Amino acid sequence: MRAYNFCAGPAALPTAVLEKAQQEMLDWHGKGLSIMEMSHRGKDFVSVAEKAESDLRKLLNIPENYKVLFLQGGASLQFSAIPLNLLGKNNKADYIHTGIWSEKAHKEASRYGEINVVEAATTVDGKIAIADQSTWNLSKDAAYVHYAENETIGGIQFDQIPNVDAPLVADLSSSILSAPIDVSKFGLIYAGAQKNIGPAGLTLVIVREDLLDQAKPEIPSILKYGAQAKNDSMVNTPATYAWYLSGLVFEWLLEQGGVEAIHKVNLEKANLLYGYIDSSDFYNNPIAIPNRSIMNVPFTLANADLDKQFLKEAEEHHLLNLAGHRSVGGMRASIYNAVPLEAVQALVNFMDDFAKRNA
Amino acid sequence: MRAYNFCAGPAALPTAVLEKAQQEMLDWHGKGLSIMEMSHRGKDFVSVAEKAESDLRKLLNIPENYKVLFLQGGASLQFSAIPLNLLGKNNKADYIHTGIWSEKAHKEASRYGEINVVEAATTVDGKIAIADQSTWNLSKDAAYVHYAENETIGGIQFDQIPNVDAPLVADLSSSILSAPIDVSKFGLIYAGAQKNIGPAGLTLVIVREDLLDQAKPEIPSILKYGAQAKNDSMVNTPATYAWYLSGLVFEWLLEQGGVEAIHKVNLEKANLLYGYIDSSDFYNNPIAIPNRSIMNVPFTLANADLDKQFLKEAEEHHLLNLAGHRSVGGMRASIYNAVPLEAVQALVNFMDDFAKRNA
Repeated sequence: MRAYNFCAGPAALPTAVLEKAQQEMLDWHGKGLSIMEMSHRGKDFVSVAEKAESDLRKLLNIPENYKVLFLQGGASLQFSAIPLNLLGKNNKADYIHTGIWSEKAHKEASRYGEINVVEAATTVDGKIAIADQSTWNLSKDAAYVHYAENETIGGIQFDQIPNVDAPLVADLSSSILSAPIDVSKFGLIYAGAQKNIGPAGLTLVIVREDLLDQAKPEIPSILKYGAQAKNDSMVNTPATYAWYLSGLVFEWLLEQGGVEAIHKVNLEKANLLYGYIDSSDFYNNPIAIPNRSIMNVPFTLANADLDKQFLKEAEEHHLLNLAGHRSVGGMRASIYNAVPLEAVQALVNFMDDFAKRNA
Repeated sequence: MRAYNFCAGPAALPTAVLEKAQQEMLDWHGKGLSIMEMSHRGKDFVSVAEKAESDLRKLLNIPENYKVLFLQGGASLQFSAIPLNLLGKNNKADYIHTGIWSEKAHKEASRYGEINVVEAATTVDGKIAIADQSTWNLSKDAAYVHYAENETIGGIQFDQIPNVDAPLVADLSSSILSAPIDVSKFGLIYAGAQKNIGPAGLTLVIVREDLLDQAKPEIPSILKYGAQAKNDSMVNTPATYAWYLSGLVFEWLLEQGGVEAIHKVNLEKANLLYGYIDSSDFYNNPIAIPNRSIMNVPFTLANADLDKQFLKEAEEHHLLNLAGHRSVGGMRASIYNAVPLEAVQALVNFMDDFAKRNA
């Protein structure tokens, strides 16, 4: 049987997607080859690649003046590629700091230019929250403003898109496709695939055309957005199988009714889990309500000595990968698009039973 | 039925490997998850990753003072990563030029340091050959000497390992694991996976430990060999599914008897195809015998007007992806490890029949 998988990433994929990939593994569309055994420049793979992009454009309603790139290297390589591509002549950028991932981004960027770190994490009534934008110390001449829309480890999410003058650059690795978003408000959106898109090894970049061609001279050539856009993300051989699987996920999402429909399910899942946690004296979530992530739900037990026992018993109930990130401990349930409502219901049932037995 | 696949890359994978991946797609080893849905830091994936490395070390007899890295970005990203990691204080390197891929490598390297391009392609009796090393204009103070052991597009392969004083850096993308090689003669070996290793999206780097920690300050952090070695190639999330599939290919290779055994089959395949081409007035291969690639066999028809007809009829015989690279035209049969002897026999039979009908 398939277990319920709360892994933060590489994360659960829809079972229907894996079944289709399984069927097509040895013989894609009667061609006698796996899709991963074909040239990326042949008409078969190009049709897969184009369909994936076109479905993604539908799902996110991406305007025509944005390019969609399917790259390698992970969001972490984008931590370098973004300043190398976008810092421009001013060589300055603002980075909003809300947690571990936004910190990694600004540390890497500071190797390439003058980075103004805007401390935006605060506490409200003892809960972690994102400070109101009016308190942010933004620069006047930043080439761009960077933020992590959802902090996968902290479980902190923005409740609105920052309103800034410079192009807005967003790490959407753990929230892309979970809720509708107005792409036209961004200069650049990037996301590692391994949460809501597909398998690890693929990174999406959605970038406004006017930002394509201002790379620094020292940038490795294949990191240049302009060159990748001109070559349909095929300056060199792309991660073809990951691209194909992502395309299957996009098809599946369209079948579910698109991003609006999956967002409703995501809210239902998050409300169920946070609602239970809030009703319990045994579990606690440290984030202020407006900034709670709908994708990553960290929580602690009243008695941390029970953590191991909780994880062991959860696994026996086929509830997997609930340990919090090694840097913070506790628990974390990642409830991405591919995690069904019944998985969250099963988790809540188990949590309630465990609490009653150990209160 | 599975077709015979002569694609230069992404290339044929062993059918047995795809069958195993197919079986395990939804449920890896009874865990209720696909291997691609698991954390790269969990014990299950770590066991897969370690087994892959250990099998590769067996296959290539890799000495203990070499690190094996499983990276993203393709050999083309290594074209940047190699000079950024290895140029050191001298900031000079020699690049042996024998074709399109070694040219791409030295063009990218010249963006980072002083590159001495050694022209090593020559002609012998009207055939393309690699000039004797005594004629090479090597520098005295190069940080390293780079070469492409097998030019995938040209079909030109070195018949011996260059004997140089500086650390030797080799692009083995299209020849790794096809024949035994003495790793101890190299400073660094790199190879994109999509020919003899696994699917596109993974790049192997085998690097001597003394070369790990001399990166230039402007290098993107995740390209640093030292950091990747220290973190078991997991500075960020690696391409886990590609890594897993590569591990299955390594297991399959060990089952075939290892690199020595597959090398015998590879020689048999190459001899059969070159032997037929040489016996025919209808087909021609442009490379001098000592430098013919045992992996990539380019050939032309006596009448180029028949190229399209040849490709069309070949496809009807389930002989796929025989068109030469877009930059050179003609035909190319890539006969990597996963292409069985009977595929080459079927190709020769078809070529002979086609020649007789069109002579």
